[in-house]
Amino acid sequence: MITARAGRPIEIKAVSAKDPSKDRPIEKTGLNFVDDPMKLATSSEIDLVVELIGGADGVAKELVETSLTYGKSVVTANKALIANHGLELAELAEKHSVLLAFEAAVAGGIPVVKALRESLAGNQLRAVYGILNGTCNYILSEMGKTGAVFDDILKEAQDKGYAEADPGFDIDGVDAAHKLAILAAIAFGMAPQLHTLRTEGIRKITPMDTEYAAKLGYKIKLVACAEKTDNGILQTVEPCLVPEESPLYHVGNVLNAVKLKADLVGSVFLEGPGAGGDATASSVIADIIDVARDVRYYPFGISCKALSADKSLKERPGEHHFYVRLFSNDQAGALADITRVFHGNNISLDIIQQPKHVAGEVSPVILTTHPTTQRAVEAACAAIGALETVVSEPQCLRIIS
Amino acid sequence: MITARAGRPIEIKAVSAKDPSKDRPIEKTGLNFVDDPMKLATSSEIDLVVELIGGADGVAKELVETSLTYGKSVVTANKALIANHGLELAELAEKHSVLLAFEAAVAGGIPVVKALRESLAGNQLRAVYGILNGTCNYILSEMGKTGAVFDDILKEAQDKGYAEADPGFDIDGVDAAHKLAILAAIAFGMAPQLHTLRTEGIRKITPMDTEYAAKLGYKIKLVACAEKTDNGILQTVEPCLVPEESPLYHVGNVLNAVKLKADLVGSVFLEGPGAGGDATASSVIADIIDVARDVRYYPFGISCKALSADKSLKERPGEHHFYVRLFSNDQAGALADITRVFHGNNISLDIIQQPKHVAGEVSPVILTTHPTTQRAVEAACAAIGALETVVSEPQCLRIIS
Repeated sequence: MITARAGRPIEIKAVSAKDPSKDRPIEKTGLNFVDDPMKLATSSEIDLVVELIGGADGVAKELVETSLTYGKSVVTANKALIANHGLELAELAEKHSVLLAFEAAVAGGIPVVKALRESLAGNQLRAVYGILNGTCNYILSEMGKTGAVFDDILKEAQDKGYAEADPGFDIDGVDAAHKLAILAAIAFGMAPQLHTLRTEGIRKITPMDTEYAAKLGYKIKLVACAEKTDNGILQTVEPCLVPEESPLYHVGNVLNAVKLKADLVGSVFLEGPGAGGDATASSVIADIIDVARDVRYYPFGISCKALSADKSLKERPGEHHFYVRLFSNDQAGALADITRVFHGNNISLDIIQQPKHVAGEVSPVILTTHPTTQRAVEAACAAIGALETVVSEPQCLRIIS
Repeated sequence: MITARAGRPIEIKAVSAKDPSKDRPIEKTGLNFVDDPMKLATSSEIDLVVELIGGADGVAKELVETSLTYGKSVVTANKALIANHGLELAELAEKHSVLLAFEAAVAGGIPVVKALRESLAGNQLRAVYGILNGTCNYILSEMGKTGAVFDDILKEAQDKGYAEADPGFDIDGVDAAHKLAILAAIAFGMAPQLHTLRTEGIRKITPMDTEYAAKLGYKIKLVACAEKTDNGILQTVEPCLVPEESPLYHVGNVLNAVKLKADLVGSVFLEGPGAGGDATASSVIADIIDVARDVRYYPFGISCKALSADKSLKERPGEHHFYVRLFSNDQAGALADITRVFHGNNISLDIIQQPKHVAGEVSPVILTTHPTTQRAVEAACAAIGALETVVSEPQCLRIIS
């Protein structure tokens, strides 16, 4: 089947693995294992190298660089590598007229890299919204369903194999940031820009937040977002409140999804498995078939020299709705003090709720704002956190539309 | 931007239109209008012809055939043409080593043709489920929201420009059938097979059905479905009950969507605008850029000679849940007669409801079945329709999972 679709046979000439004896669900008979992966990169018998090692640097980077330099196309699932070194690797691929293909690096089996690079090539992209980390989506979905606390669900996710033993890469948003930087690069014709990408994880979300968000008609999701503004590209990964009208609201469990907004097509939404061996294989094989079909494309959609200089923004422009949750002592004038701070920062409040108010005790206060700037709401939250009647820092999350 | 993405400039050499003087939202200065479209097909100055005429035969077919024969690639949005004559046109394209590209023919701006042909090329496809006609989805969504009858909403859709003056092509499922035949051809490696495609439109759906479906937790959607079974490919376009867990449930208004099931990727879901000039343009331009990039592919993913012989099925195999709605006189034993017929056809009932029962009057009866065959449920419904106590033919719809 693959031969028919590629239009020519594809042969596995050699394989390299750190531990070749490791138990793998494949037939190893006939596979030529070599100890030094660099031999794949330099062999004159090999046209294409598939890199599935991982990591932004080290062996993976050396293998990809060497392969491209030796005129071999490379297929990789390595998001850290492409997000951190995408430009220099794309330049190498372009120089040697070979492909650098990384569909599997973003959103696993969802064909979003090709959709952006080829299918929306006639569009001016406006925004990319993604749920790009299945672990975070699972944890947030479970918090919403069960009311259990973050640590317990993380433990459960680790037991089920949905989260790594060292979960920071996922739950602090780093993994989603790598994927977003790659999508934004293709969408907006720039090299991947990690250094300006605002990244915030989901450790701070409490079951109370998922519960109150639900009562207001929202779900909390870790949303990766790249938007074109008048002044540049804003890239953020952060927990947001998502309304039921958004297709992202319905993305459950460990699924990934991407919503692409563009001038001609309006909005296109893609959903599927973001991780797992089979889903990754689906994208890796598609890339291999593209190489076999002698397809030509620029890794980020346009020539490296046409990629624009850094045009990413550090601060969110425009006005947005925000959700704020805090704990306040039930003292005379406490709520008045809080609303006065918002007023002082020119922020109009939409909803104010004290859902579990008990006279004389500390109780939660939930607020949503009318459109205001990120800077204003952050200033207001800092000032409110400093009030004597307020216990701990307010939780502030953007509400997306 | 298009030049950068195509890697070379694209020039509009000539344009032909039935009525060149018609008001169009484009700048016509500098466009070279020619009266006879066949001159585009035969001109030695033209590499690519874009056909946006429509219709399975006539000028559109002649233009595409002649263009391919003269060694020109063709980009078309013409679903009727590809569904009816796809194989012979693909053979012509293959013979002359040019592209026949039709992303815009299916689901407008959703890049599902490329996703199937290229992104899932490593997968064995299992099923394609689609909401492929925006007019039907709009009408069914509005019936569910407003409770208005079919004819009134159709009239409203016509006023809004969502439905044609002659709406049969949409509401009788013909348009969705064309699109499904194209997707099934790529998914399952066969020429488009319209003659075995079971097509049923939405004229028979009543507000009562949308209301009762909603109470049972479903929405009624016109679902285009191509499934691989042990005995062949089943292709159907018919109104179905869709459960809330399915992403198709949430596809509202005039949107289109496709769910692709395959061995490696599991399930991928795509949603977007299925019609409209801009969405169509998005797909047409993407195809034009593919041609300019000198991409090579087989129109249906594999060489025409590798396409399998007709392997489509006329009858649905396997067992499924069904919804049945009928009107019965309130006579002693009426319900017993009905349930006896189901029993006699070896059908177990899941739910039986008489939601608006008034003693002594005709009232609706709603039933859902446990898994049974299409043949059994159709036999049961025919027998029930012939009962003296039952008024008119029962409505029978499949419940999809």
